[in-house]
Amino acid sequence: MFVTFLSDFGLQDDFVGTCHGVIKRIAPEAEIIDITHGIPPQHVLQGALVLCNTLAYMPIGVHLAVIDPGVGSTRRPLALRDAEGRLYVGPDNGLLVPAAERFGGIAEAHELANPDYALQPVSRTFHGRDLFAPAAAHLARGVELGELGPPIAPETLARLDIPQPTIGDGQTQAAVLYVDRYGNVQLNLTREDMERIDVAPGARLELECNGERYYAVAARTFADARPGDILLYEDSYRNIAIAINGGSAAEMFAARPGDRIALRRASP
Amino acid sequence: MFVTFLSDFGLQDDFVGTCHGVIKRIAPEAEIIDITHGIPPQHVLQGALVLCNTLAYMPIGVHLAVIDPGVGSTRRPLALRDAEGRLYVGPDNGLLVPAAERFGGIAEAHELANPDYALQPVSRTFHGRDLFAPAAAHLARGVELGELGPPIAPETLARLDIPQPTIGDGQTQAAVLYVDRYGNVQLNLTREDMERIDVAPGARLELECNGERYYAVAARTFADARPGDILLYEDSYRNIAIAINGGSAAEMFAARPGDRIALRRASP
Amino acid sequence: MFVTFLSDFGLQDDFVGTCHGVIKRIAPEAEIIDITHGIPPQHVLQGALVLCNTLAYMPIGVHLAVIDPGVGSTRRPLALRDAEGRLYVGPDNGLLVPAAERFGGIAEAHELANPDYALQPVSRTFHGRDLFAPAAAHLARGVELGELGPPIAPETLARLDIPQPTIGDGQTQAAVLYVDRYGNVQLNLTREDMERIDVAPGARLELECNGERYYAVAARTFADARPGDILLYEDSYRNIAIAINGGSAAEMFAARPGDRIALRRASP
Repeated sequence: MFVTFLSDFGLQDDFVGTCHGVIKRIAPEAEIIDITHGIPPQHVLQGALVLCNTLAYMPIGVHLAVIDPGVGSTRRPLALRDAEGRLYVGPDNGLLVPAAERFGGIAEAHELANPDYALQPVSRTFHGRDLFAPAAAHLARGVELGELGPPIAPETLARLDIPQPTIGDGQTQAAVLYVDRYGNVQLNLTREDMERIDVAPGARLELECNGERYYAVAARTFADARPGDILLYEDSYRNIAIAINGGSAAEMFAARPGDRIALRRASP
Repeated sequence: MFVTFLSDFGLQDDFVGTCHGVIKRIAPEAEIIDITHGIPPQHVLQGALVLCNTLAYMPIGVHLAVIDPGVGSTRRPLALRDAEGRLYVGPDNGLLVPAAERFGGIAEAHELANPDYALQPVSRTFHGRDLFAPAAAHLARGVELGELGPPIAPETLARLDIPQPTIGDGQTQAAVLYVDRYGNVQLNLTREDMERIDVAPGARLELECNGERYYAVAARTFADARPGDILLYEDSYRNIAIAINGGSAAEMFAARPGDRIALRRASP
Repeated sequence: MFVTFLSDFGLQDDFVGTCHGVIKRIAPEAEIIDITHGIPPQHVLQGALVLCNTLAYMPIGVHLAVIDPGVGSTRRPLALRDAEGRLYVGPDNGLLVPAAERFGGIAEAHELANPDYALQPVSRTFHGRDLFAPAAAHLARGVELGELGPPIAPETLARLDIPQPTIGDGQTQAAVLYVDRYGNVQLNLTREDMERIDVAPGARLELECNGERYYAVAARTFADARPGDILLYEDSYRNIAIAINGGSAAEMFAARPGDRIALRRASP
């Protein structure tokens, strides 16, 4: 059984390795795939989007995700099942919901409340190790979801506000969802949005971000633009993104998740 | 058989991957768990503390640890067995000792001296690859500890000075042991120390670090403090740590491992 | 079957984890060894050198390497076999060639053109996920190289210019190949080059880099030099490298891959 694992733990400390150890002590046969542990600390929305984007590329299994600014508070620890049979383990702060809804919706939700499936004593600050990793490991070795704790009505789960674009008369207001290692800036826009505002490959646009204006060109891929050109393209997760051919758009724009970007058609 | 692996190699270079390859060529069935490779370069004490804190969460197996500022000098390469049966491989600079002593003490120690269990020729600068990883792999496939080289008297092994707090009249002098990704600052204090100086959850304290003074509150977990509050809490490895709810204590205090921190009870 | 994996993807994003997922969906039995994903973004030469240096330490298998600044252009996606039976998958930009030539040369090359062994639709910007990882996984589960696409004449493959030193009268011009986490600076010089210019352990040299001059000593290992000394030594991959005992040579020299360094014998 595969356990995929996503968190904001980073790889500098032992948090990820310790959770691997906990899983392997409980379920030695489980195989762990680390999706990423590089989500910026406590950015639940970034983690939820990455989980939602990547699960289609993962073997179906148990999907452990821990970004947990509310550890030690009253937020509930959860295990879910989606309509396609994937199992999810993580905190009730919205992290798991976009992925589960992409795969048919939440079929079943339980609170992690059975002490038999946690490490005792459960610490107040590291539920990844003491609650979530053990629950994922027990699911991976075949424990039934219902064994972990009482059912929760899916409609009571915490949900995230996913920023929506405003497509207006001559101008589109978008938001930065994610910035990657190459400096590519992912927006909350899809190809369908671009078609609505009549931007086809080759079209020129004006972008405004953090008080500065830039000219960009809509392109199919990096190779369609000249070195140094700013381009808008559909990225590999089917979001519209901004890149600079041979450079870092994030650096030029000083763009960070949550920033607003305005797009306007430029005269050709 | 599990091989856990801790080092200061980082993940930017190929050092960790190369050691994985070496282990897998010798022991294809061994399963490697990376505890962390993010120990600051050549900080043997940090590595020793992390190894000691995390092994309880790892399957029992071969525990490879490489932080080796003395590579190429006369420091001895070691393999140990603790009283509970764990095997350890690493340099004789104190790195392995706190963990082995936590689990019943060093039952057996050997110098890695048998050339049959090393990669030949052994380089002068990368014993992780040429000596330690091969020894760990051979142990994982069942080679006896005594095969690796002659026995060493445990009391001749190098040991680290672990900084001890000074608990005085009205003031406690502590030291920073570790700073994590979230900016939490781990001190060389335990809950028992806090009880000795009569600090219970809810108590207010004055902290002095690097010439600056701060007010803090003793708390059970982050959620017990208001956003922006500085709090002292028992962390998940049972050391007292300093955090800022929603911020980075390490950044505010400019705290680094080895820094001294003074604690005083503040008037309520 | 082992799949080794090297890239410039970093570990901050999900790129590496997503490729792991893709491989495991196709070849659940394959075992992946991450050589490194820390190659600086789009530095094909650094990646080619690291691949060439490390494969001797890896189990023979499928060797996936993705550093791909030309993704979406007309550069061909490749699978190769070397004379010793290793299989390689990656872009036709020279990345795979130095390793394959080290192990007897390229015995067979094919273009990845068979859509049955790619994820459909193939994105324009993430061939690691959609083309290269699937091809590596299919090879790992036993698909024949020739199934992946039509043969390519090895002499038509793209090749890299590997910088060569100039050994002149009293002065050697070298180039920085690689800088590691410890600040060690690897040069395009070998022990044979040092013997040609009559530099034996103990000899003193003058180095010139980025307009500054430094004195260094030739040494066998770090322990042969005093703290703070600059030393030249043969590193564990048999290149000559510059280090500072207890410090970072890369920081002191402000050295980066591609920089030129001049070496001269100093009067004893």
